[in-house]
Amino acid sequence: MLRVGHRPGRDPRLTTHLALTARALGARRLLLHPPDPELAARLAAVSERWGRGFEVLGIADYRRAIREFDGTRAHLTMYGEPIERVLPRLRKERRILAIVGGAKVPAELYGLADVNLAVGHQPHSEVAALAILLERLRGIPPPGRWPEARASIVPQRRGKRVRTHGGGSR
Amino acid sequence: MLRVGHRPGRDPRLTTHLALTARALGARRLLLHPPDPELAARLAAVSERWGRGFEVLGIADYRRAIREFDGTRAHLTMYGEPIERVLPRLRKERRILAIVGGAKVPAELYGLADVNLAVGHQPHSEVAALAILLERLRGIPPPGRWPEARASIVPQRRGKRVRTHGGGSR
Repeated sequence: MLRVGHRPGRDPRLTTHLALTARALGARRLLLHPPDPELAARLAAVSERWGRGFEVLGIADYRRAIREFDGTRAHLTMYGEPIERVLPRLRKERRILAIVGGAKVPAELYGLADVNLAVGHQPHSEVAALAILLERLRGIPPPGRWPEARASIVPQRRGKRVRTHGGGSR
Repeated sequence: MLRVGHRPGRDPRLTTHLALTARALGARRLLLHPPDPELAARLAAVSERWGRGFEVLGIADYRRAIREFDGTRAHLTMYGEPIERVLPRLRKERRILAIVGGAKVPAELYGLADVNLAVGHQPHSEVAALAILLERLRGIPPPGRWPEARASIVPQRRGKRVRTHGGGSR
């Protein structure tokens, strides 16, 4: 996925939620514009503990990242086509770049994307829109240890159970 | 839905995203602990423009709100049962209270809830978890004007189109 217009000082928590959501629901990579080394370090710490396979790459030029992406560029916006209409096409694609704008979305994103898609046509949250897109495309990953994880969760009806792996560190 | 442990000074944007997501995906009401009049006013302004039917109620005693709720209490937590396992049961319920904890989730929530459910067993975002729960329970509302809305979106392949209603105000 690509996050355009992140404001490192102002919305670190929101972009952290976006990145964690992308990771938890099976995205491979967050392209973050502008770069934010602190956020990348936070996500690396999460992957260190809970499993690898997701990376954060800071990028200076998002237009170029969009143009050079080898796959379908799907811009999430409340003004776009209903997700239900677009999903059959997206499900056929091998590689998808989900594009999420910040508080002020540059108008050019609409033209740079192959698809502008709306998860509902009400104002809500880019975190919610991304979550539903990923869930509809790939489902929810089942419980279990992720690659190289030091910890994994054992689902419980009540309370918490965490299993630790490897050298006994926790 | 019920948000426990909101910190009015610290995470207004995150709880705003949570509230907007609940509203956009068909929830009726946010019970907000502790109360936050500014957040309630922001949501009221959104409903004024985009349509009514969602309210924010500040509550002082969340234990009582949970106990007195007349329906199924579903606590969202990465430590819970897989959502897929719980959905068939939830789909039979007439009223559901989705419970979302703040940064520090009181352990008692696990015992106060009827169901503890996980949307994936990785750390991510309460906004994402709520979005997927609501989407799986009720689907995504179709485009169109909401009750008493002054504006509604006309889905577009490119760009934005907003239709205004009523006295021509926008």
